[in-house]
Amino acid sequence: MEYTKPLAKLIEYFQKLPSIGPKTAQRLALYMLKMPDYEVENFASAMLEAKRTIKYCEVCFNMSSDSPCEICSSANRNKELICVVSETKDLMAIERTNEYKGVYHVLGGLISPMDGIGPDDIRVRELLERVHSADIKEVILAINPTVEGEATSLYLTKLLKPFGVKVSRIAFGLPLGSELEYADELTLTKALEGRREL
Amino acid sequence: MEYTKPLAKLIEYFQKLPSIGPKTAQRLALYMLKMPDYEVENFASAMLEAKRTIKYCEVCFNMSSDSPCEICSSANRNKELICVVSETKDLMAIERTNEYKGVYHVLGGLISPMDGIGPDDIRVRELLERVHSADIKEVILAINPTVEGEATSLYLTKLLKPFGVKVSRIAFGLPLGSELEYADELTLTKALEGRREL
Repeated sequence: MEYTKPLAKLIEYFQKLPSIGPKTAQRLALYMLKMPDYEVENFASAMLEAKRTIKYCEVCFNMSSDSPCEICSSANRNKELICVVSETKDLMAIERTNEYKGVYHVLGGLISPMDGIGPDDIRVRELLERVHSADIKEVILAINPTVEGEATSLYLTKLLKPFGVKVSRIAFGLPLGSELEYADELTLTKALEGRREL
Repeated sequence: MEYTKPLAKLIEYFQKLPSIGPKTAQRLALYMLKMPDYEVENFASAMLEAKRTIKYCEVCFNMSSDSPCEICSSANRNKELICVVSETKDLMAIERTNEYKGVYHVLGGLISPMDGIGPDDIRVRELLERVHSADIKEVILAINPTVEGEATSLYLTKLLKPFGVKVSRIAFGLPLGSELEYADELTLTKALEGRREL
């Protein structure tokens, strides 16, 4: 037997989502069939609503239903401080700390020659324009410590320096609550390099 | 910053699904915002379509868009052989073997006094009616080897025997490709108990 058609279709759609394999897709679809009608209807409209209303902020390229986004248009944000991230999810991670009061710039990826992603494929030009046209004091690179992240950081630093703007990078080292004994060599190296005088 | 409203709502709905935590929900929602419009629209309609059209088969309580379901109404299925499972997903697992040619009965749960689930809360009466009114030769219990599964199997066996029908249970033992050395004690015990003469 095959799945009954409408169920097969629903499972197929769940499988298109990242990290959802055939078994999980089946479980999610079967669960959904047991949800109350109105819940499924609300879920479906939430999908359509989000897709319809959310666009990129024209300033920082954050996802938002308004443009400029809530952050760029907030009076409580320091517009002289730009935090550069690769993706919206990184921006969200930083927002969850509730500590950062500047604005953002979402690159939409990292430079990766292996994957054929060059500087023109991410929002480098838009960042330079912002730094050029507004009064920016500091650009913080909050980019993953990966090969692609390193390449992108180096590239951006080189381009940004001539504007006379301060360029910094978030610290890498031991995560809080972790044990030195179990840290990998690269993290330890980074932690040593980044040591600060007390 | 909070998530922009429509995104927060979509994330919230993903979180209602089983095994989807806040981080996965966020990842799925952000991914969906990058999918082409028509894909999201098709996904939403697949949800509504499945929910609207799929019901329980009135004979075996399988989920299907028809009642009786594809299996119950198929001429190639042996109606004298009923395989009893707890949930639709167990039925699907057996169907995937392509080996079973009988029909099914989906209980919709297992007897579990701890959770307040008694025989009247699952489809025991409906099973007895089927065995009573049709010409059934054998009932195969394909029920998990858990405490609830054991209780349900024992209970069903007791009720079914008086009908003069053969009652069997699927075998438990070492999974194929596994190594005896790593099997847990309960599985090994089951495997020993279920040994067959060669």
